[in-house]
Amino acid sequence: MKSPSSLEFLAEALRRLPGVGPKSAQRMAYHLMQHDREGAAMLGRALNQAVEKVQHCALCNTFTEHEVCEVCSNPERDKTLLCVVETPADQLMIEQTMTYKGLYFVLMGHLSPLDGIGPKDIHLEKLIQRASDGVVTEVVLATNFTNEGEATAHYISENLKARGLKVSRLARGVPVGGELEYVDAGTIARAMLDRRAT
Amino acid sequence: MKSPSSLEFLAEALRRLPGVGPKSAQRMAYHLMQHDREGAAMLGRALNQAVEKVQHCALCNTFTEHEVCEVCSNPERDKTLLCVVETPADQLMIEQTMTYKGLYFVLMGHLSPLDGIGPKDIHLEKLIQRASDGVVTEVVLATNFTNEGEATAHYISENLKARGLKVSRLARGVPVGGELEYVDAGTIARAMLDRRAT
Ligand SMILES: [Zn+2]
Ligand SMILES: [Zn+2]
Repeated sequence: MKSPSSLEFLAEALRRLPGVGPKSAQRMAYHLMQHDREGAAMLGRALNQAVEKVQHCALCNTFTEHEVCEVCSNPERDKTLLCVVETPADQLMIEQTMTYKGLYFVLMGHLSPLDGIGPKDIHLEKLIQRASDGVVTEVVLATNFTNEGEATAHYISENLKARGLKVSRLARGVPVGGELEYVDAGTIARAMLDRRAT
Repeated sequence: MKSPSSLEFLAEALRRLPGVGPKSAQRMAYHLMQHDREGAAMLGRALNQAVEKVQHCALCNTFTEHEVCEVCSNPERDKTLLCVVETPADQLMIEQTMTYKGLYFVLMGHLSPLDGIGPKDIHLEKLIQRASDGVVTEVVLATNFTNEGEATAHYISENLKARGLKVSRLARGVPVGGELEYVDAGTIARAMLDRRAT
């Protein structure tokens, strides 16, 4: 006995999704065919549409359906500031803080030599070009405070400073609401070194 | 700032997959657009094809691309035996044991009154019709040995026996290779009650 080939093909294709193994791919395929054919058809349409329409912003590299994204084409934004983030989700988090009115550059990842992710994969040339437009005066590095994010920030910083650009990094320290007892020692050590006059 | 609508639509559609919440849907959408557009296109094709082609076997109710599935149309199978399983995956497990040469009926679920899953959802009428074809002499209930599977087996058994059909159930007992010390008490109790002369 074999599964019908359309179902096998569907289960195989579902495995292209990150975090989906053979068992869950089969479960998903059965679920869609048994309980949610409308959802399956909708997902099929969504995939086709996204593949066709979603591209990268010519300026900031984020996902957009236009040549230049909404943020980059917003005349209200401060064009002298460029904030570098790893992902569109990170950009969204910063937007939600309402503390930043400049523009962005989205790396779509971070350096990870062991995984073969180098400067080209995080679009370093495009970032250097973007930051060298003569209007940007400061680049704010807002990559994650993980090992990879820190290494990425360091690498970008060296490259941009070599071109005479002013580069800053989000401050590290004890999180707002953080109780020292529950904050890790590395964070406290960093907060001590970076302490500010009050 | 907003995500482009094609991406939002894709993330929304991915949530139709079982076990996929908003965070992983977004991660999947980003992953496909950034790293695997070919996979996205392939999944789109697979979904469209499955929605179009996959149907239920007129005889056994499993998924198939034909009116009647491969197993049901195989002349080598013993048409007097009908094994009732919950899912195509369960059927596959039984096929792999090479111990059964009869036909199947796939419920595509189990009774679960609390979830609103009743006799109609497990295609009881279709099963009764199938089992009453005058050729089937024994129905083997191979639903899971969970509460729902047991209740489903009981319900089906009552219905088929009322129509004069012979009904059996897979044996319960200590699993092959099972050490009594590590087998739960309920299983041992059942194995004791069902003990067989040697
Ligand atoms: Zn942009
Ligand atoms: Zn069949």
